[in-house]
Amino acid sequence: MNTATGQPLARYAAAKRIGDYVYFSGVIAVDPATRQVVERFDQLPAAVSTQLGETGELSIDVYQAPVLVQSWVVLDRIRQLAEQHGGSMDDVFKLVQYFTDLRDYPLYAKVRRLFYPGEPPVSTVVEVSGMLPSRQVRIEVEGTAFIPVARTQV
Amino acid sequence: MNTATGQPLARYAAAKRIGDYVYFSGVIAVDPATRQVVERFDQLPAAVSTQLGETGELSIDVYQAPVLVQSWVVLDRIRQLAEQHGGSMDDVFKLVQYFTDLRDYPLYAKVRRLFYPGEPPVSTVVEVSGMLPSRQVRIEVEGTAFIPVARTQV
Amino acid sequence: MNTATGQPLARYAAAKRIGDYVYFSGVIAVDPATRQVVERFDQLPAAVSTQLGETGELSIDVYQAPVLVQSWVVLDRIRQLAEQHGGSMDDVFKLVQYFTDLRDYPLYAKVRRLFYPGEPPVSTVVEVSGMLPSRQVRIEVEGTAFIPVARTQV
Amino acid sequence: MNTATGQPLARYAAAKRIGDYVYFSGVIAVDPATRQVVERFDQLPAAVSTQLGETGELSIDVYQAPVLVQSWVVLDRIRQLAEQHGGSMDDVFKLVQYFTDLRDYPLYAKVRRLFYPGEPPVSTVVEVSGMLPSRQVRIEVEGTAFIPVARTQV
Amino acid sequence: MNTATGQPLARYAAAKRIGDYVYFSGVIAVDPATRQVVERFDQLPAAVSTQLGETGELSIDVYQAPVLVQSWVVLDRIRQLAEQHGGSMDDVFKLVQYFTDLRDYPLYAKVRRLFYPGEPPVSTVVEVSGMLPSRQVRIEVEGTAFIPVARTQV
Amino acid sequence: MNTATGQPLARYAAAKRIGDYVYFSGVIAVDPATRQVVERFDQLPAAVSTQLGETGELSIDVYQAPVLVQSWVVLDRIRQLAEQHGGSMDDVFKLVQYFTDLRDYPLYAKVRRLFYPGEPPVSTVVEVSGMLPSRQVRIEVEGTAFIPVARTQV
Amino acid sequence: MNTATGQPLARYAAAKRIGDYVYFSGVIAVDPATRQVVERFDQLPAAVSTQLGETGELSIDVYQAPVLVQSWVVLDRIRQLAEQHGGSMDDVFKLVQYFTDLRDYPLYAKVRRLFYPGEPPVSTVVEVSGMLPSRQVRIEVEGTAFIPVARTQV
Amino acid sequence: MNTATGQPLARYAAAKRIGDYVYFSGVIAVDPATRQVVERFDQLPAAVSTQLGETGELSIDVYQAPVLVQSWVVLDRIRQLAEQHGGSMDDVFKLVQYFTDLRDYPLYAKVRRLFYPGEPPVSTVVEVSGMLPSRQVRIEVEGTAFIPVARTQV
Amino acid sequence: MNTATGQPLARYAAAKRIGDYVYFSGVIAVDPATRQVVERFDQLPAAVSTQLGETGELSIDVYQAPVLVQSWVVLDRIRQLAEQHGGSMDDVFKLVQYFTDLRDYPLYAKVRRLFYPGEPPVSTVVEVSGMLPSRQVRIEVEGTAFIPVARTQV
Amino acid sequence: MNTATGQPLARYAAAKRIGDYVYFSGVIAVDPATRQVVERFDQLPAAVSTQLGETGELSIDVYQAPVLVQSWVVLDRIRQLAEQHGGSMDDVFKLVQYFTDLRDYPLYAKVRRLFYPGEPPVSTVVEVSGMLPSRQVRIEVEGTAFIPVARTQV
Amino acid sequence: MNTATGQPLARYAAAKRIGDYVYFSGVIAVDPATRQVVERFDQLPAAVSTQLGETGELSIDVYQAPVLVQSWVVLDRIRQLAEQHGGSMDDVFKLVQYFTDLRDYPLYAKVRRLFYPGEPPVSTVVEVSGMLPSRQVRIEVEGTAFIPVARTQV
Amino acid sequence: MNTATGQPLARYAAAKRIGDYVYFSGVIAVDPATRQVVERFDQLPAAVSTQLGETGELSIDVYQAPVLVQSWVVLDRIRQLAEQHGGSMDDVFKLVQYFTDLRDYPLYAKVRRLFYPGEPPVSTVVEVSGMLPSRQVRIEVEGTAFIPVARTQV
Repeated sequence: MNTATGQPLARYAAAKRIGDYVYFSGVIAVDPATRQVVERFDQLPAAVSTQLGETGELSIDVYQAPVLVQSWVVLDRIRQLAEQHGGSMDDVFKLVQYFTDLRDYPLYAKVRRLFYPGEPPVSTVVEVSGMLPSRQVRIEVEGTAFIPVARTQV
Repeated sequence: MNTATGQPLARYAAAKRIGDYVYFSGVIAVDPATRQVVERFDQLPAAVSTQLGETGELSIDVYQAPVLVQSWVVLDRIRQLAEQHGGSMDDVFKLVQYFTDLRDYPLYAKVRRLFYPGEPPVSTVVEVSGMLPSRQVRIEVEGTAFIPVARTQV
Repeated sequence: MNTATGQPLARYAAAKRIGDYVYFSGVIAVDPATRQVVERFDQLPAAVSTQLGETGELSIDVYQAPVLVQSWVVLDRIRQLAEQHGGSMDDVFKLVQYFTDLRDYPLYAKVRRLFYPGEPPVSTVVEVSGMLPSRQVRIEVEGTAFIPVARTQV
Repeated sequence: MNTATGQPLARYAAAKRIGDYVYFSGVIAVDPATRQVVERFDQLPAAVSTQLGETGELSIDVYQAPVLVQSWVVLDRIRQLAEQHGGSMDDVFKLVQYFTDLRDYPLYAKVRRLFYPGEPPVSTVVEVSGMLPSRQVRIEVEGTAFIPVARTQV
Repeated sequence: MNTATGQPLARYAAAKRIGDYVYFSGVIAVDPATRQVVERFDQLPAAVSTQLGETGELSIDVYQAPVLVQSWVVLDRIRQLAEQHGGSMDDVFKLVQYFTDLRDYPLYAKVRRLFYPGEPPVSTVVEVSGMLPSRQVRIEVEGTAFIPVARTQV
Repeated sequence: MNTATGQPLARYAAAKRIGDYVYFSGVIAVDPATRQVVERFDQLPAAVSTQLGETGELSIDVYQAPVLVQSWVVLDRIRQLAEQHGGSMDDVFKLVQYFTDLRDYPLYAKVRRLFYPGEPPVSTVVEVSGMLPSRQVRIEVEGTAFIPVARTQV
Repeated sequence: MNTATGQPLARYAAAKRIGDYVYFSGVIAVDPATRQVVERFDQLPAAVSTQLGETGELSIDVYQAPVLVQSWVVLDRIRQLAEQHGGSMDDVFKLVQYFTDLRDYPLYAKVRRLFYPGEPPVSTVVEVSGMLPSRQVRIEVEGTAFIPVARTQV
Repeated sequence: MNTATGQPLARYAAAKRIGDYVYFSGVIAVDPATRQVVERFDQLPAAVSTQLGETGELSIDVYQAPVLVQSWVVLDRIRQLAEQHGGSMDDVFKLVQYFTDLRDYPLYAKVRRLFYPGEPPVSTVVEVSGMLPSRQVRIEVEGTAFIPVARTQV
Repeated sequence: MNTATGQPLARYAAAKRIGDYVYFSGVIAVDPATRQVVERFDQLPAAVSTQLGETGELSIDVYQAPVLVQSWVVLDRIRQLAEQHGGSMDDVFKLVQYFTDLRDYPLYAKVRRLFYPGEPPVSTVVEVSGMLPSRQVRIEVEGTAFIPVARTQV
Repeated sequence: MNTATGQPLARYAAAKRIGDYVYFSGVIAVDPATRQVVERFDQLPAAVSTQLGETGELSIDVYQAPVLVQSWVVLDRIRQLAEQHGGSMDDVFKLVQYFTDLRDYPLYAKVRRLFYPGEPPVSTVVEVSGMLPSRQVRIEVEGTAFIPVARTQV
Repeated sequence: MNTATGQPLARYAAAKRIGDYVYFSGVIAVDPATRQVVERFDQLPAAVSTQLGETGELSIDVYQAPVLVQSWVVLDRIRQLAEQHGGSMDDVFKLVQYFTDLRDYPLYAKVRRLFYPGEPPVSTVVEVSGMLPSRQVRIEVEGTAFIPVARTQV
Repeated sequence: MNTATGQPLARYAAAKRIGDYVYFSGVIAVDPATRQVVERFDQLPAAVSTQLGETGELSIDVYQAPVLVQSWVVLDRIRQLAEQHGGSMDDVFKLVQYFTDLRDYPLYAKVRRLFYPGEPPVSTVVEVSGMLPSRQVRIEVEGTAFIPVARTQV
């Protein structure tokens, strides 16, 4: 796994290019500065929180913030990694998505649509019983991208 | 994920060709017409049910039908997807297989043998705590195929 | 899955070469001779047990042995498979690692460092609720290697 | 309790006028025709389902439909009862809202806003362990209205 | 809450008149003499037990007595309170009924019919996880009555 | 519900006057500034903590603080609301009190006595399985007051 | 086991005569036409439902119907089997009765009285954790009858 | 079932003679006078308690008394029933023995040896999840005896 | 109960002839030599394992072996007992079959067919929570046979 | 352990002098006369109950009595033992205190202050899962005293 | 802790003399040769097993052996340690006894009587949730002895 | 208990000298300044964290930090107490060690070795279900030291 800004959670590569493919480690939403799992709207830029649907009503946000925020952080990190390798979100053609509670899926799907307004990638979704580094993690996403070397060398 | 007839469960691609590879979304056994998870022999053609070992004894079929039926529907859908991309089941060289109860494995293995009478694919099997869209789903399979473009252009 | 010495746990391939890639089935730590899940230091060569940190104190080893031993057996088997296909551990560029209890991760990470003293592979880690063939299995690892055919033909 | 069309679930009054007040029994979302708890979008008029946010994606609707649909049916029934007593939704000044899972609150709140675009009523929310007639019921709402008799006699 | 004979379980009023309304504390079935929760037929007058359906068969009464007896004691206490304020059971126009197990509802409903042979009150029913003073309590009922002062002054 | 200083937890009224009655939303102990559930003595004025029985011994306060503090904040908020509508605590004639653990009742009762040294209100107490906005909430109280308009106009 | 109309649930005899005795397989309430466990009053003739105490109130029938209906179907099937062997319910001298929840006993006992208005049979009652073919089954009854061959040959 | 002195727990026969056989209902240890499940040594004659191994040490008897006492009461009742039909314990040739906790078996076996010092009967033992009339019952035994009518007529 | 070779698990008779009937104790699959519950194919003759469907694939046999092996051992022991009393499997006219998990029923039914290719016996099946001597026991069967003395004396 | 009046719960010494030390067995609150665990205020002298804070309100005392009463009985017994050996409570310099629920600690601490108004002893507190002789026991305390022989001989 | 023959389970002293006192580590029943927890009679000398009450009936011994055997091994080890320090069992004046299930106490008490036929030591008994090195351990005993140095020097 | 710097968690002595012995209260790892349970490496001096094995990898430290840190804080506090009484760690001859999860033992043992490089003390280890003041506490250690007064007076 790797965190949203690329500082590894543990001692392994965030992504690896093998020919025209780029393979990503599973991404979870940990803030590398505080080393805490991201869970609240105030941990994101205000504009993003608004886009994700922050309501300002405590009783609503307390349930929706962790999923919305983690979904955005994780997918945004995948986008950054794709860009670092010369591609974009559209080059990420496959996603394996792990949840700790599948009832979070509708909110995740709403966020993913922001990243894939057009044709969506190949997708697998399962609910697992845990992820690193703690029980607060709700979502982990492993992506694979196809970014021809030729294109990056232009 | 995608259902047995290709109508997406959700808003993403059932399969994607990347060069000579075809990547499939995880497949689960949902009947696109009724939008229900498939669980009974009478949801399959009679010949298939017979081949799967329907006994006609309620106390036996009630336990075996969900696994046998879902196993067949899922693998048959993967076969269809491979054929739509110019290949066959033998080109699907890797399967990641998720179960909600590993005691279902022996029945699944019996069905898979119908699809792979010859050399079997590379395989990973784990038990997870849930899959979309409901607790009735027992099996999800994610396949990867190698179907050279050259072959499909003949 | 395939066991540590290559005798299949079930009826599928331990690994498959597709062009320059080698895909491995998920590996778990079963001793093919006894058909038992490996759990104790005395099931390994003494030198390996020492390297893994066997203490000889029963109250410590009883907790650490299953994880340390399974981690070693699984990764060593992946190394063997890579070598059988003309490569080495460094060619295994991606690992998907399933645990039944993520508290086992620190010990696993310690063992993995023995196999990857240099740059580590892309990595995904999740906790699942079970693996084949029994509840004693703590770890399953699915690897992917890039071993150009050209190199093996030298 | 009383169902959405006024046919009692059990043998008691749906509402009772006491001077200028109208007291309602707790309302749950049972379809009086089929005597089933309402849970799916196809049990509502299509325009309502659209307004509630039906997506047509099975994996999303399967989680959101029960809450959205029950929220609408229950509040719509309270509106009908208020109208039958000469008032409107705005005269229902107090709501006691029982949930079986408070994670349903955000979706309920979204639906309630359709009924109270202006000033909302006094409100109490608690999670209880069950409601009549079955475990499928997610929401029960008990309302109180102030509808002066004088007004109804105009 | 207040017990069946008016001796408070705790330090608060059993009922309070506010204008033409009489509000009751939640009532549970505690015998003020023994300070025990009432659960057996022999804690009631024999005629009442007969009316409630005592069978004399231990295996039946052991399951039905607690619910039947508590239902009767609670509703009888509400009747007494209404009478103390110059009204009758028919003036109690609203009941909020808490159960610890909703499977007790059918027996409760049978008893309530003895107190409301005519038009029943407005009613809310939920299952909660506990009531004072102990886990033996199965039912708590909070009533509200409308007993015009004018009537009591005749 | 509304928090202790009147900033709504969600989008509904803290209280509503209907003729001579004032109805309050259920109150829970959330600090509007930090949007956190109140749980510790240091979140109250020191004089209040002393009055509530803070001992300064960690092993005692850790168990008693959440209940004592929440009880005080909730009842104090109800007092404020009554005063804002021209009345006092004695005009709040009815309380419905929800707990997540009835073992908290003795400490709550001790605090309530501070607010009702004289005649106590009509009271209902039940244990529910949850309240908004989180599992830290131990107590929610819904009050009703009778504060004649005439009096407030003097 | 055998179902209510004699079509076997599984591959074994519904009853067997051994000299003057007739031994019955355990009977459960499955409708042979639909192969579903019987649970609702509308699956019985209306006159029977009335006799069993159908109330028409959903909140009552939802709890009582499964037990009442299964009790009747099971005992009626035993009566049919006795008659097919030349006897009557009174010749069934012994019953072993399995429940999945002993709280169902009072309703079962009420139904059994309809079949044994006179002297009842020898009886054993235990609660087990499951019966074939599904968790919906609440009652299984195994009877033994004494029907002298001589009598059937008259 | 029938209690230890023959007063039925419920409305069915304690035993029934069919030719040379006597069939007994399942017996549990209820004291017909108090209608309580028997659990303590002081509910037996002192000589019996001594024979069963009462130690007088509270911490031992509290665990052993319920099983020892119920075992004795149940088997003694079967002996009485056999004698009432002209036989003895040795004529009871078959026992089906239900336990709610099989760890009770060693103590039961010790008691049974008092009743069968010679050749023991045919025996079946299973652990079930409950018996009538309450969770305190630990053991239920169903016996069958062969007591030729001819012998009783001498 | 008695074990597969007749050495009693405990101190009671394996079978008893009463006139023309032979009653068997409940049989479970314990190997009298090792005093262990039988669970693996290698505890049976190879020909039997083959007939039962041993696959040699660890991941399948680990789930199926315990049920298949215990089913065979138990029914084979009943056959031996019938033969020792001068009869055969066909004379065993009634079976009471206890399972600890009814999902084992299909495999048991497959084995029973080997012993009853023709007309099957009267049958009762329930799931209980445990059997002697340990949690490894999956199946216990109690048989009754009718083997006329006259026939055995020929 | 030993009970509050010195009659052993089991067969071992209540206390033992070894030189200048006196070691006590763990003490629990069993009334030697009734052999019941002490749980109610009416099992203590009235003056003690008042000192412990009996309120006379059932809903409060039902939660607080068991802990307050057991705390007093246990510590009072330790005081008696110290006195029997020529010392006082102040000579008991060490306490190991076992609870079955640490939420009982604040009430225990309040009682202990009555016995140690001055300098308190060395103390260890843990929560265990059970104590002899039954689940009603909430507290067990093991003390050690230093009472020089010289002093007792004066 | 230390095992029955003194080989430490872990790296600490089995016993330590401090002046006239000897303090023992907690003892559990591990066989130092096999490093397994002792659980069966055949792990003891035959004469000891007989003395402990081995019955030879599998269904009894399977429940009683682990407790009886561990009790004996643990107390015998304490006796050895006392003797190694120049004392005997009677010098061990205090025992703290930990159980994982207090229902094991009666069997333990029976064994302890073999070691303390005369005056028993001071004793504390609690049930804890686990002990080293595994869940099979049922009993751990920590003893303290008083063995004057003077005596050992004679 | 007492915290790591001597400020009592509750109102009792951290240690007490009785002749040549010093008895310590159970120690847990609470930071007296923040009154929080210590759980992270950044709560210790950096040199200590390094010595304990901080890795800087979040996924490893998150599991190991609480145990390593608490082990060090607790043992270091015992060392301080010994020194305050004129002794050293080597004079602490006995430790009773309570864990809430025995899987923490290997890490604790590693830390204890830092404090006892030479001969270790007498030791007892059990897993309990809780400790004061909260569920975050993983370890509590109660020590006893022998520090002759004579030595401290030199």
